[in-house]
Amino acid sequence: MTSCQGSEAVLIGQSGGPTAAINASLAGAVEAARAAGAPVLGMRHGIQGALAGDLVDLDQALPSPLELRLLRQTPASWLGSCRYKLPDPGEDERPYQGLLGLLSRRHVGVVAYAGGNDSMDTTAKLAAYAAREGSGVRFVGIPKTIDNDLPGTDHTPGFGSAARFVATAVSELTLDADVYDLKNVLVVEIMGRDAGWLAASACLADAAGGRAPDVVLLPEAPVDDEALVAKVASLLERQNTVVVAASEGATRPDGTSLAEAPTGGAAVDAFGHAAALSGTGRAIARLLGERLGVKTRAVELSTFQRAASHCAAGRDLDEAAAQGGHAVAAGLAGQTGVMACLERLSDAPYQARVGLVDVSQVANGVRHVPGEWVTPDGMGVTGDFHRYAAPLIEGDVELLRVGGVPAHLRAL
Amino acid sequence: MTSCQGSEAVLIGQSGGPTAAINASLAGAVEAARAAGAPVLGMRHGIQGALAGDLVDLDQALPSPLELRLLRQTPASWLGSCRYKLPDPGEDERPYQGLLGLLSRRHVGVVAYAGGNDSMDTTAKLAAYAAREGSGVRFVGIPKTIDNDLPGTDHTPGFGSAARFVATAVSELTLDADVYDLKNVLVVEIMGRDAGWLAASACLADAAGGRAPDVVLLPEAPVDDEALVAKVASLLERQNTVVVAASEGATRPDGTSLAEAPTGGAAVDAFGHAAALSGTGRAIARLLGERLGVKTRAVELSTFQRAASHCAAGRDLDEAAAQGGHAVAAGLAGQTGVMACLERLSDAPYQARVGLVDVSQVANGVRHVPGEWVTPDGMGVTGDFHRYAAPLIEGDVELLRVGGVPAHLRAL
Repeated sequence: MTSCQGSEAVLIGQSGGPTAAINASLAGAVEAARAAGAPVLGMRHGIQGALAGDLVDLDQALPSPLELRLLRQTPASWLGSCRYKLPDPGEDERPYQGLLGLLSRRHVGVVAYAGGNDSMDTTAKLAAYAAREGSGVRFVGIPKTIDNDLPGTDHTPGFGSAARFVATAVSELTLDADVYDLKNVLVVEIMGRDAGWLAASACLADAAGGRAPDVVLLPEAPVDDEALVAKVASLLERQNTVVVAASEGATRPDGTSLAEAPTGGAAVDAFGHAAALSGTGRAIARLLGERLGVKTRAVELSTFQRAASHCAAGRDLDEAAAQGGHAVAAGLAGQTGVMACLERLSDAPYQARVGLVDVSQVANGVRHVPGEWVTPDGMGVTGDFHRYAAPLIEGDVELLRVGGVPAHLRAL
Repeated sequence: MTSCQGSEAVLIGQSGGPTAAINASLAGAVEAARAAGAPVLGMRHGIQGALAGDLVDLDQALPSPLELRLLRQTPASWLGSCRYKLPDPGEDERPYQGLLGLLSRRHVGVVAYAGGNDSMDTTAKLAAYAAREGSGVRFVGIPKTIDNDLPGTDHTPGFGSAARFVATAVSELTLDADVYDLKNVLVVEIMGRDAGWLAASACLADAAGGRAPDVVLLPEAPVDDEALVAKVASLLERQNTVVVAASEGATRPDGTSLAEAPTGGAAVDAFGHAAALSGTGRAIARLLGERLGVKTRAVELSTFQRAASHCAAGRDLDEAAAQGGHAVAAGLAGQTGVMACLERLSDAPYQARVGLVDVSQVANGVRHVPGEWVTPDGMGVTGDFHRYAAPLIEGDVELLRVGGVPAHLRAL
């Protein structure tokens, strides 16, 4: 460490799809930098904005604990986000050189980047390049994704809040579907193309004594149309309303998406466009309606499930802030190429410890729901999943509303 | 009144589409009956269940204030609902005779029926028939609809909670849509086939200082494709993200739905089915994407907007309970053929008074958003709408959650 370490700035960026917790991570990162006396800068629109020199002074933009408190309950990426993949430095070194030049001019000693798999790839590449070039800048990662699919950590910030929203929504939608004396099927489509953590969380709808969905479809557990139709038919013999929680990435054993027609040809809409993957719920509802002759309804939770900060889990926000702060503190202490992570110490009472993991072990990997947590018929999850996920949706948040609507920190 | 009035029972039913407030009305009705010393019965699945003799003893099912408190935060129709239209008694008197016979056997003096236009038609028919037959049974109505389209009252229970949810969702979804440095359009589809009250409530997204949607499309204000495309194009010149709040019943000046192709032919899906009206948001997103070459996303709030009791407005629940109680009290006092209603005394501070209206004046009518509350271009609402609607989404609710999920009263 040089003697000017005390004035080294911390630069924070947000990347990838937004969540209800990524701004809590930002707040935690800012607080840790301030606690160390470091000036704090932010990237507008992630690394893409930084490459264009678009930095903001967060000490001016977030002058007091009140702004940090409002930031914590503001959904989406307050700094703006991007989906930008750095080239391999062997192919094109210019973005790397440009960024290191900017960081040097702005006296940045630590770059903390919050995001998912791709963002950790960016962090790993930058850390490796900077080390090779002899730059003193440290690059650290802050995990973020509602998909909960990052390796190297027990769970990711954003997942608990999205799962709490999914459980709440499924609990309420199930009651809504069951009011008529009529056989019917409700299909709730939940985000997660490759990993089913969030769809499985629909099972937590029974947390307060209510009903869990009858069928859960995960990308990890392919199910064929006939097995699904048979299971729902059997359920309809003894109950009016059957609820299916379907991951958007649910598939058949032959690898085709349940959003596609079973022949394997992608469905097209009236204008000849290929049906988007987000039609999984509608396709399943159509299949069950046609085969079983009952009323069906598909509800797609869509981007709302990642944006619904009014329903955030307090534990998730606390852990997001703690990991944001831990990553910045590690960078200030001289570490680089690491991501903050969580190690679970016990399920009940729930205890977890913040730690660090090599970011290159996280980059581009995908962590799936373990096969042994799926029931033998492939259409449900076991008690192990409940024990894992139930603590993560807990924690009530004191939400400031004005005029009936949640208060959000004013946009930059 | 006969001398047995003290033991006259009150029978309560719920009908039509569920809301987040109809169970608060039930709780208020039960409390009013108890305050008068009357036994309380409930219809399973509304008048359809009652005609089949399916009544439940609510003094057993709801033994204490704790159950009523949980009932208040439980979404959907706890007693079950129906969509049943009584025949004209001139054509078929049997359902009327059957029901009056049942009511006599069960010593019912007052029937309170909660619902929308159709349910008030049922209430009006039964009140008229009973009076003509010399029955002493009184029939009273409790208003209920998220659509807010009942004549004879300032606003309807269920609307305020749904509007609060819509404003909250649009506020959060707008931030989510705006994270990338990219031109894009978000279309949020909101319920309301004939009346645009709920879609207009998206404007309340600015209640806490955030952004209202840029464009609001109501059934009351037909807009042609070219005007819509031109407005969004103009907005995109000065901002990255344009938000359109579209009623599912939004139409063109020629009367066609915006969910249909502009030629007038109904769109069909890949399986040849006519596109459901619930595709309005997707159709608008497709139109704008094709014409403007920008990324678009359609989010349909679907049945969630009427079921989201975790986001209910306290004022709405209080008024729902008050109107449930007022209707029962009126029936016990000998009135029949009336519906509880609200008369607004002032906007700020908000004051309203519970009253009664002739139910036949409510039945089958539709109350629209006044034309003068729509902006001249037909794609927004005026300050008058804000002054009307803003007070109705207020009031925080102390929500009991267990394990992160709202507690609901166990199903009957």
